[in-house]
Amino acid sequence: MLILHNARIYTLDPQQPIATALAIEQDRIIAVGETPDIMALARSGSVIQDMAGKVILPGLVDAHIHLQHFALNLQRVDCETPTRAECLRRVAERVAQTPPGQWILGHGWNQNEWPEGFGSAQDLDALTSAHPIFLTAKSLHAAWVNSTALHLAGIDAHTPDPPDGRIQRDARGQPTGILFEAAVELVQRCIPQPGVQEVAQAIQQAQSTLWRMGLTGVHDFDQRTCFLALQALRREGRLMLRVLKSIPAELLDEAIALGLGSDFGDAWLRIGGVKLFSDGALGPQTAAMFEPYLGREDRGVLFLDADQIYEMGCKAGEVGLSLAIHAIGDRANAEVLTGLERLRAWETSLGKPHLRHRIEHVQLLRHQDLGRLAQAEIIASVQPIHATSDMYMADRHWGERARYAYAYQSLLAHGTRLAFGSDAPVESPNPFWGIHAAVTRQRPDGQPGPEGWYPQERLTLQQALEGYTLGPAYAAGLECCLGRLREGYYADLIVLEEDPWKMLADLLYQLQPWATMVGGKWVWIEGETA
Amino acid sequence: MLILHNARIYTLDPQQPIATALAIEQDRIIAVGETPDIMALARSGSVIQDMAGKVILPGLVDAHIHLQHFALNLQRVDCETPTRAECLRRVAERVAQTPPGQWILGHGWNQNEWPEGFGSAQDLDALTSAHPIFLTAKSLHAAWVNSTALHLAGIDAHTPDPPDGRIQRDARGQPTGILFEAAVELVQRCIPQPGVQEVAQAIQQAQSTLWRMGLTGVHDFDQRTCFLALQALRREGRLMLRVLKSIPAELLDEAIALGLGSDFGDAWLRIGGVKLFSDGALGPQTAAMFEPYLGREDRGVLFLDADQIYEMGCKAGEVGLSLAIHAIGDRANAEVLTGLERLRAWETSLGKPHLRHRIEHVQLLRHQDLGRLAQAEIIASVQPIHATSDMYMADRHWGERARYAYAYQSLLAHGTRLAFGSDAPVESPNPFWGIHAAVTRQRPDGQPGPEGWYPQERLTLQQALEGYTLGPAYAAGLECCLGRLREGYYADLIVLEEDPWKMLADLLYQLQPWATMVGGKWVWIEGETA
Repeated sequence: MLILHNARIYTLDPQQPIATALAIEQDRIIAVGETPDIMALARSGSVIQDMAGKVILPGLVDAHIHLQHFALNLQRVDCETPTRAECLRRVAERVAQTPPGQWILGHGWNQNEWPEGFGSAQDLDALTSAHPIFLTAKSLHAAWVNSTALHLAGIDAHTPDPPDGRIQRDARGQPTGILFEAAVELVQRCIPQPGVQEVAQAIQQAQSTLWRMGLTGVHDFDQRTCFLALQALRREGRLMLRVLKSIPAELLDEAIALGLGSDFGDAWLRIGGVKLFSDGALGPQTAAMFEPYLGREDRGVLFLDADQIYEMGCKAGEVGLSLAIHAIGDRANAEVLTGLERLRAWETSLGKPHLRHRIEHVQLLRHQDLGRLAQAEIIASVQPIHATSDMYMADRHWGERARYAYAYQSLLAHGTRLAFGSDAPVESPNPFWGIHAAVTRQRPDGQPGPEGWYPQERLTLQQALEGYTLGPAYAAGLECCLGRLREGYYADLIVLEEDPWKMLADLLYQLQPWATMVGGKWVWIEGETA
Repeated sequence: MLILHNARIYTLDPQQPIATALAIEQDRIIAVGETPDIMALARSGSVIQDMAGKVILPGLVDAHIHLQHFALNLQRVDCETPTRAECLRRVAERVAQTPPGQWILGHGWNQNEWPEGFGSAQDLDALTSAHPIFLTAKSLHAAWVNSTALHLAGIDAHTPDPPDGRIQRDARGQPTGILFEAAVELVQRCIPQPGVQEVAQAIQQAQSTLWRMGLTGVHDFDQRTCFLALQALRREGRLMLRVLKSIPAELLDEAIALGLGSDFGDAWLRIGGVKLFSDGALGPQTAAMFEPYLGREDRGVLFLDADQIYEMGCKAGEVGLSLAIHAIGDRANAEVLTGLERLRAWETSLGKPHLRHRIEHVQLLRHQDLGRLAQAEIIASVQPIHATSDMYMADRHWGERARYAYAYQSLLAHGTRLAFGSDAPVESPNPFWGIHAAVTRQRPDGQPGPEGWYPQERLTLQQALEGYTLGPAYAAGLECCLGRLREGYYADLIVLEEDPWKMLADLLYQLQPWATMVGGKWVWIEGETA
């Protein structure tokens, strides 16, 4: 038995919101209460830890992440440096650790931040000719490669620019090593796909990054290799992060043939819904809209209409698979809602269980659609950090319609269940950045001003924390054992030195756990190496 | 906390074989030891149960069952009656409870046991014309149907006998309602396949039959509908039996496409291996043999050779799926062993984990093949009740080769891991019948004599119990938490009023648990209704 006492525990359990101690047996909480009562449970061999007044919260869960991509990105050389020279130093360091023939991958450079400006293939050639090097810009719209990579890709002075791309060339017409837009793909497609072991290794390492941020679980939207890597980690006892794994749409038929439904698995690795895409995105203005984007005539692209969603939902529902549908624009969300409402009626009429269907992103809704998610018990899987990252873009492309963009408080007012995530690696998975964005509707630098962007949509701290705890637990069908600190629940928790309820909301993004526990085991303690 | 004390606990844990008390928190054992020490753990709210000196053993697991078929069979009218009149009375009772149009299914009649001899369609027609009736003989080689069933199947005076089958007819050439061999299929194919809900319902009911016998888990070899039904039961918290679910061979490609491996799932429902068939069976003499069956020229049928097994094993191994291969004859077993040995070498050469491959039945081995299972870490998934059911047939068809048929002690001597099952509904899943057969090599009536059949192959009680506990736990990759009574293990156990170590081995088949616990919950207590 492990007893944590002398703590300030915010359980998120309405039956007992505050406590000072809890007892853990193996991977579960067996008692939550006041220190004297819990201490009385101790017996010979029990471990007793004094939390010295620190704050304990349930472990946080990121309900939308691309775990494989995030993990592999962490393996890349970090090229976000003040100078090009420092970037080259880091690349040289990686070269020295890497067997010849293997790719050196990096990310994050920005020539505008560097006194030296753009790099060149020659800079990299000075480090190695035995490794192809591929370094993407922070914008992802450009790449910097060495001559070995250019050679592997067959790029030389005679290579024409691809449609929508450009190969930077010197005065003599020779490629310089900088590739723009679609030209990036010419090299990227030569990089071998990572194997299961490599991905498993990367995910194992990424876990500690996530624990350090306060995450004890994720809902993953990557593909088959990621699923295999997660199974390998779980089999070997190396998975210490709870993962809900979605099924890619292109494997729906196989899942149906096997009869594999949502919720199958355990609390470590569990099948979620089938991931479908109903439209594009805000940035490229491909999200499906009822009215044109401001200053344009087009309304984006709708990939799936209500009929198709209903049909796929019935097929998937026959084996108990829920749907998780990407929808950004107001048109896409309305269409998805119509499809899911019909699917609910189908479930009801056949006496089938109501599955945990969800819309991913729900970025823009019409006013009249705000209540439809709650009405049809659809989970809004949203990413608060997108609200503040995208706010200027949303104003620019959607104008006044943005009033109901990222409209979390309005959704809650209708009784919608929110599950918060990050879409990492698109954004950082740091849940405190998301909590800060949800509570303040501001960026860390205070933009767009004291009240935040559409301040009516700000959340309370409690609501934001629930979005990272109860929300994901419900979405995963695990509200019986995760998302709260309660007797019988898994011992997934974080310890904070500062009390988030007693600090300025503006500073919430700075919070970092002092320690993180998953399944009764400390996986991260500040100052200790794992 | 639940404390069971004043018991005689055979833990099957070599570190602490005997204890008198154990403490359970939620679904797990948290302490095993002597009554005073365990009682000291009690706290306010703890439930303390005095076992009054009864015996406690780990829950037993049937490592080879067809759960859907077994469960649906239990729903059938039991036609194993002393008289035809009694059988008709039972059928009439079922008719009264069944909506018109639905099939009435029954099993177990034997006209030789009935003073009245064979029944007829007219007997059944007197009960109903609104329900088709289909009653299979205990031998499964004949069926008794009513006129409604004959009509649905299109069987009348003009219907020719099918190849290998016969429609019994009266003097005027009219079908009597009795069908033999392949003619049974003419009606059987008209019976609708049961739906998922129906199967789930049947399995839920079958659980209590299994608990009453002492089973807390099974390894199932039925198909997709069974998997869906099990998922539905698990989702609704109605699955209180731990199930390892095999993947049918015809779904191997889909499992590979999805990336679904063995061990995925939880301790309630978990993916096992891919079920393959390498040969036929002993009864019809289709098991693949090196030398002909006694008095015949043919050697049975080999469905898969070593190359095919190796190839399928590599494909499956890429996603971490193990193989569970049916092999009866000595040739089939040798061929499967060759394939699995090569598969092991492949796993080793690529640094892959050694999966829990198994041979189902392993009925006949050549002397020189006895050590190969242990050598290649192949699990022998065997059914002790088959040894005594089949012994005369084995002598008749295999002659002296039967020395190494069902050769459990020889396999153990080489270090083979045994997992015991029943192949229910082929045999009863009663594990004490299996234990009795393994320990005595006799039938309950004492056949074939005092020493049993090939007495060198008798097991000790301890070995037999391990075959129903540690063996299946290992085969399922769950030896870390099942198969023993030990701290941290699941609280799956049975309580016996008699001590099997203190009774005549001849009577072991009579044992019935007084109570059965799965995951810390009593699911069966004698004299109480669930």
